[in-house]
Amino acid sequence: MVYTAVLGYGVVGSGVVEVINKNRDSISMRAGDEIAVKKILDIRDFPDSPDKELLTKNAEDVFGDDSISVVVETIGGIGVAYQFTKRALEAGKHVVTSNKELVATHGPELLKLAKEKGLSYLFEASVGGGIPIIRPLGQCLAANEISGITGILNGTTNYILTQMRREGKDFSEALKEAQLNGYAEADPTADVEGHDACRKIAILSSIAYNEYVDYRKIQTQGITKISLTDMQYAEAMDSVIKLVAMSRKQEGRIYARVSPAIVRKEHPLANVEDVFNAIVVSGNALGDAMFYGRGAGKLPTASAVVADVIDIVRHAGSNSANTWKMPEKDNMMDPQEVNGRYFVRIRVRNQEEAARVVNSAFGDVSWVKANNINLEDELAFTTPRATEKVLEQGLSKLKGIGSIRETVNVIKLLED
Amino acid sequence: MVYTAVLGYGVVGSGVVEVINKNRDSISMRAGDEIAVKKILDIRDFPDSPDKELLTKNAEDVFGDDSISVVVETIGGIGVAYQFTKRALEAGKHVVTSNKELVATHGPELLKLAKEKGLSYLFEASVGGGIPIIRPLGQCLAANEISGITGILNGTTNYILTQMRREGKDFSEALKEAQLNGYAEADPTADVEGHDACRKIAILSSIAYNEYVDYRKIQTQGITKISLTDMQYAEAMDSVIKLVAMSRKQEGRIYARVSPAIVRKEHPLANVEDVFNAIVVSGNALGDAMFYGRGAGKLPTASAVVADVIDIVRHAGSNSANTWKMPEKDNMMDPQEVNGRYFVRIRVRNQEEAARVVNSAFGDVSWVKANNINLEDELAFTTPRATEKVLEQGLSKLKGIGSIRETVNVIKLLED
Repeated sequence: MVYTAVLGYGVVGSGVVEVINKNRDSISMRAGDEIAVKKILDIRDFPDSPDKELLTKNAEDVFGDDSISVVVETIGGIGVAYQFTKRALEAGKHVVTSNKELVATHGPELLKLAKEKGLSYLFEASVGGGIPIIRPLGQCLAANEISGITGILNGTTNYILTQMRREGKDFSEALKEAQLNGYAEADPTADVEGHDACRKIAILSSIAYNEYVDYRKIQTQGITKISLTDMQYAEAMDSVIKLVAMSRKQEGRIYARVSPAIVRKEHPLANVEDVFNAIVVSGNALGDAMFYGRGAGKLPTASAVVADVIDIVRHAGSNSANTWKMPEKDNMMDPQEVNGRYFVRIRVRNQEEAARVVNSAFGDVSWVKANNINLEDELAFTTPRATEKVLEQGLSKLKGIGSIRETVNVIKLLED
Repeated sequence: MVYTAVLGYGVVGSGVVEVINKNRDSISMRAGDEIAVKKILDIRDFPDSPDKELLTKNAEDVFGDDSISVVVETIGGIGVAYQFTKRALEAGKHVVTSNKELVATHGPELLKLAKEKGLSYLFEASVGGGIPIIRPLGQCLAANEISGITGILNGTTNYILTQMRREGKDFSEALKEAQLNGYAEADPTADVEGHDACRKIAILSSIAYNEYVDYRKIQTQGITKISLTDMQYAEAMDSVIKLVAMSRKQEGRIYARVSPAIVRKEHPLANVEDVFNAIVVSGNALGDAMFYGRGAGKLPTASAVVADVIDIVRHAGSNSANTWKMPEKDNMMDPQEVNGRYFVRIRVRNQEEAARVVNSAFGDVSWVKANNINLEDELAFTTPRATEKVLEQGLSKLKGIGSIRETVNVIKLLED
């Protein structure tokens, strides 16, 4: 019998207890041993919980109990969760978590500590909910040099963008709808500003490239500025707008970015709708592989946590090979030097004159005309492929020109 | 240093050597040790091979060499490959393979032998080429009770069906095209008759349900009878025709089937085109997850083989938990008792009379009219949901009726 403790009895934590109870037989068959929850630590009261016999407010009941060998941390955040994770590892207990914020922030330190202690620190559930992605990246694709990851990693924003495109709702309406359905929190900042996706792409990139990618260095832009008009232009380009998290490794340096992107409809990510997530991984032997499923939710996320627990039980201590090398120098590419193409919308006073200015600022642009949009005071175009620096130089040339009022929006095109 | 030997220097075998050499650094980082190929066993001569120093025709050079701890079997078939696999395991060597035929046929025995010896017998590459699916099924989704698997598991037939639908080629033209492009073998039977997909769904099902599913008991039908007319009808139903391999576990019994199926365009498998494979796994905690990528090819398949080798090196002997329980009694559902809906085409002498007969034979059918098809001597419809037995009873009622010439085709609808 292997005893675990669950720290934090919220949505995911209670889901973990539920999955362990519900699938007891198949879990013990897979793990080669029975797995049981011995304690649940939470400072709150849950008088009606079916698990109330296991609940405790006293951390010592967990950390002081030598029979508990695996701790599940589903507290979230980087305060108490960080303290408790260190304390668990120092007490000789393996730790499994769904806490992307903690992994993205203190991953290198916690992985190192786990390794020193001969323990595992596993976090399959931190990215992609129930979609297996962390372990496939680290293990199944281990024979590949991974060159890139491109994903839809945040279900909330994907739901909002899907509602906008399909139902013609504007951003704030679609956000309200997401909140009503429980897909967005009361304070939606972390989702809609891209912070959640940013931490996730940082974790995936750290595993894929085997060195720590600091989420604080990732260019991050959310979806709050995306309008229905932008979507109509995208449609005219036979594309959709998605919040894309991506990273590439080129010549030893890493480029990572979270931003809205215009995605051609034939791209596999274009069909990923509603709260679903998908991750495309590019390897030098494999080519591209895609992983798709529900990126959040109580039981999917809990099932990923429990899979990590099973892995620990099966492999008893031989899991800790993953440590993230801290880069000796800055390992990130200068975003200004990264090539790309952009969709640009500008408000103009005089279309013909403005068009001449645009052509001289950007070179050969492609004009985008949308069926339903016939704004005399607007022009839309895609730029030739160039660095972000050149793009910004182009945009700055549009300023202070009489025929041009302002730049309305700039959205990157997703290229392969 | 971990020494491996490769048995069979064909497409996959030479790819394995290539991947091990090409990604040497990242592989040793992942594995925690260097991995090298010490011997390659093949009865053929390869005078121009870059690996000719490693080639041998003497099996004893492999099995008698105690420094070789992992054997890669890429011979194929169930003759020599079977003998050599047993010999390797008996000599205390781990075995990794891409040989789906051998795994589907002798998997239980070889897994048992490996377990007894404290060794691993791994076969990630046997299904889905480079797509990680075997390990995710056994490990990442271990906390789920898996209720079903639905996949496009054969790239050759998917390429042929894609060519038919997109380019309007008929089956034999599309097959020739596939052969010219190296996607189909000179003798295409194993692919086009569904045997390849059958072995693969047998392997996936054995892992998912943790008991051996004998491929010889799986209803298997290929794509040779699919015509362009069938595809036009599918289009009229806003669907496409795919060769679908699927299995379900219900009330302790397993149903598995390989056959052409009519797949609604909004289903994630409908967009899987050309030689790509995709597998949808349904778990009781996870919901659905999909794995997508190149299902064949030298380097993708080789990268899956090498990932298994890395896994063995990392976990040194703790991998062999997977054994397939041999079912005590027949674990397969009677196909006759399985529910479904079917698309049926019949040739008629008199449409009105035939329609009356159809309605009385099947109950409330839905008539299917295709835009470009206006055959006075034909009727097409989908049946209500019923068991296969009831379907066959209905079909038999159409026989010997004056207004009906013959049943042209019957194709199952893919339901969730």
